[in-house]
Amino acid sequence: MNPVTIFDSTLRDGAQGTGISFSLEDKLAAVRLLDQVGIQYVEAGNPGSNPKDQEFFHRAAGLSLRHAQLVSFGSTRRKNSLLQEDANLAAILAADTACCSIFGKCSKFHVDHVLETSYEENFRMIEESCRFLKDHGRTVFFDAEHFFDGWKEDEEFAWEALKAAMRGGADLLCLCDTNGGTFPGEAEAIVGQVVRRVSLPVAVHFHEDCGMATANSVLSVKAGASQVQGTLLGFGERCGNANLSAIIPDLQLKLGIPCIPQEELLHLTHHARELAAIANVDLPAWMPYVGENAFAHKAGMHAAAVLKVPRSFEQVDPYLVGNTRRFPASEISGKAVVLEKVKRIFPHVSVDSQEARALLRELKDLESGGYQFEGADASFELLVRKRLRPFPPFFELLYYHIYTDYSDGKDRGASATVKVRVGGEIQLMAAEGNGPVNALDKALRKALELFYPVLSQVKLTDYKVRVLDSKSATAAGVRVLITSSDREHAFTTVGVSGDVVAASWKALEDSMEYLLLKAEVSGKE
Amino acid sequence: MNPVTIFDSTLRDGAQGTGISFSLEDKLAAVRLLDQVGIQYVEAGNPGSNPKDQEFFHRAAGLSLRHAQLVSFGSTRRKNSLLQEDANLAAILAADTACCSIFGKCSKFHVDHVLETSYEENFRMIEESCRFLKDHGRTVFFDAEHFFDGWKEDEEFAWEALKAAMRGGADLLCLCDTNGGTFPGEAEAIVGQVVRRVSLPVAVHFHEDCGMATANSVLSVKAGASQVQGTLLGFGERCGNANLSAIIPDLQLKLGIPCIPQEELLHLTHHARELAAIANVDLPAWMPYVGENAFAHKAGMHAAAVLKVPRSFEQVDPYLVGNTRRFPASEISGKAVVLEKVKRIFPHVSVDSQEARALLRELKDLESGGYQFEGADASFELLVRKRLRPFPPFFELLYYHIYTDYSDGKDRGASATVKVRVGGEIQLMAAEGNGPVNALDKALRKALELFYPVLSQVKLTDYKVRVLDSKSATAAGVRVLITSSDREHAFTTVGVSGDVVAASWKALEDSMEYLLLKAEVSGKE
Repeated sequence: MNPVTIFDSTLRDGAQGTGISFSLEDKLAAVRLLDQVGIQYVEAGNPGSNPKDQEFFHRAAGLSLRHAQLVSFGSTRRKNSLLQEDANLAAILAADTACCSIFGKCSKFHVDHVLETSYEENFRMIEESCRFLKDHGRTVFFDAEHFFDGWKEDEEFAWEALKAAMRGGADLLCLCDTNGGTFPGEAEAIVGQVVRRVSLPVAVHFHEDCGMATANSVLSVKAGASQVQGTLLGFGERCGNANLSAIIPDLQLKLGIPCIPQEELLHLTHHARELAAIANVDLPAWMPYVGENAFAHKAGMHAAAVLKVPRSFEQVDPYLVGNTRRFPASEISGKAVVLEKVKRIFPHVSVDSQEARALLRELKDLESGGYQFEGADASFELLVRKRLRPFPPFFELLYYHIYTDYSDGKDRGASATVKVRVGGEIQLMAAEGNGPVNALDKALRKALELFYPVLSQVKLTDYKVRVLDSKSATAAGVRVLITSSDREHAFTTVGVSGDVVAASWKALEDSMEYLLLKAEVSGKE
Repeated sequence: MNPVTIFDSTLRDGAQGTGISFSLEDKLAAVRLLDQVGIQYVEAGNPGSNPKDQEFFHRAAGLSLRHAQLVSFGSTRRKNSLLQEDANLAAILAADTACCSIFGKCSKFHVDHVLETSYEENFRMIEESCRFLKDHGRTVFFDAEHFFDGWKEDEEFAWEALKAAMRGGADLLCLCDTNGGTFPGEAEAIVGQVVRRVSLPVAVHFHEDCGMATANSVLSVKAGASQVQGTLLGFGERCGNANLSAIIPDLQLKLGIPCIPQEELLHLTHHARELAAIANVDLPAWMPYVGENAFAHKAGMHAAAVLKVPRSFEQVDPYLVGNTRRFPASEISGKAVVLEKVKRIFPHVSVDSQEARALLRELKDLESGGYQFEGADASFELLVRKRLRPFPPFFELLYYHIYTDYSDGKDRGASATVKVRVGGEIQLMAAEGNGPVNALDKALRKALELFYPVLSQVKLTDYKVRVLDSKSATAAGVRVLITSSDREHAFTTVGVSGDVVAASWKALEDSMEYLLLKAEVSGKE
């Protein structure tokens, strides 16, 4: 089968999902991740409707990407107006991506009742907008909004919209099931008819409102579509967009249709969880392929059969998508995966050594206490190094005291006092911050920089808090993830505690230790 | 189209989902609920493998059900053994349900490698077990385990298994995609062939491992299946079973195939949430039809269109499944949405009044400062009430001081002192907690409960922290969402600040004020 290209809209349509929002740094991290996954097109924003996206595209232009092309998204020009004066088209051009995606209406109902213009003007909007962007040298993907519904209302009208885009020079036609109401049989038949009648590549864009987006996408490919649009984790408006983390393995593993590099498919679960960490959401454990329980066998009979013959109750080998077989009842999961990660740090470690086994036990204890090392590789590496090749501590915390104050109608911020021992010396330091964690961070840094000037090159670039057991609310356990960057690298550390300050401390401590260890190792080499 | 019967296995296959467990009382409550939904068959346990299920069936016999028949589940007899001595068949009989479901193997691979017996013995196990239960007066549903995989390995073998069940007198053949690896085209074709060749009713049972269970179920019905098996919320082993809360409306609303009474479909969302409450799980907000966000319109352009013409961005009317259209206010949604929400609180407000315009400006400012009212409806309502119908404050914070301490290698938690004024009185209160926010919450509550005993009915049930601008990391702005519940309702409030404690304070303050305002309003009515 011919390869299919994958178009991810996590940062555009995905960001329209309720509860999903990305900071600029999140978006840059997500682009790097999606590029690593091997996705060919990353639709990353709607610069005309969201001014923050302008800055994003400016920053993103500096990223060096291996697989992904960035795509900016927007509407065709406004009705009865001039292309040259259209703020939205101007914003798309300003985003300065080689490829852009513009949507126009393919449903008579929508032109009558939502857009409220003549059919001719609707088709002119599509044709002229495509041509305008082509004339500016762009690759143009035409998003045929409400295409399937429009086709069912009036096939000829939907055709006219596609023809307008083709006259305008569009490079690809994307058939959108914008409301998510299309069923697989219909989708397959309509896509097949369009593919047979046009010479351009055809993409499909489905939503999950009937629970059909995965099936629709896969059947459309079988009917001749050569691009699938969706979002890696299914984020999106209402019930979400087509979930690429299911569609990619469905196509690549089950139908043999190449989508992304095989070696990245082997890490799909890890990539999915990293993106979830960037978005700060929990993935449902039962997500196909990448969910925590996707290969969990709880029923005794199934577990016993799987231990005997793995494929007896598994449709694919979890290894092929980087997931792990789990036996939740017996808790015997994960060991092979962890050892694999340990071997990346110390290639010659013996997996049967006493140290390795003690490390595995400790990891298991930490995980049952709420730790999660996905997306916190620096903490993981630090722990592995500490246990397998112990090194003397760089510093020791003797105490911190933090005072937080609100008075006379104003938040007065926080002040922290930190006492640390480095070698034989003791250092007491204080700092103010706009919250307890910020004050603690500043005081600790000031104290340690006296001994380790290298720390002044590191900045905290991200700070995330997750509540673990939401039932006990403000007394719940929290997991803090801190991302730090020196000039070259970003790395993430994790801390867990019942107290947000104590959890932050652990993640901060790890970040400083990790950097000092790296500096020491590279100094020796 | 002929009606389709619905067979729910939440209490059997669903209970095999990781993280799902039901007490005996839970199971009885779930049966009552599923009966109310109008589901015809409720598979409620596996008495042979789970001794607790015996007691359940005994208790359940006393329920008076309107729609549902209880079904007990189990295996065909053990290989090379006598029916009369088979503990599992005895347990099925002891459960004393009119209808029972037994599974037998339809895959050569499984007979060879898992069951490890001869093909003839496998078919005898099926035939004899069906006949045994028929002889005891039961309605027998034969669960053709691994049927689709078995068919693809060796069609004739899979046929022989069905024929054995028919010879044994089975009343229905259920074709199972036990590993969830079947795609819609295959499912439709195989079901069609079976339906054409047998006179018995044919059921289908799919799993979600490829994200295809909904499509497979619906296409199977189109191919002639007359029963769909699944679980109301998609609970089940690995990625879960076919999700009936999507399949029922797909069949009934979109294809016009009756499944459950129309008046119960109108309450489907409520029923789904009740079952989630019994199972003590959070439903993903993006579940088709019944999810909290299934009809949420966040993008400004979509929201504006839906306000104009609801069906413009909705595949069905949310009313038809008892769900609600939502317009989570957010940075990418427009003025029309906000005014719609204001009008739900004050129906007669003039949208052109000075107050309304001032409110809109304030909301915009708050949003650009990092506030987000989606999912924080209580804070939104409070703000609207304060601006449009001001009320005297219930309390005033004079100060809080919080002290957080780590020493001698241990997190010592936090202590908070709070000074509040209520009317003319001043109250000073202190409390300890396992972090600064927890200590603050406890001290504030203790102080205010002296004046407002109603606050003792409220509990914090969830606490979420988001970092807004991750560039400045621990100095970043944070948004805190707090969910509180009294006995009847849950409501969510929001606070934003550079300081996590100050942001938490704002959300806490809103939650207390909101509750006090609600108590006052309802006291007046």
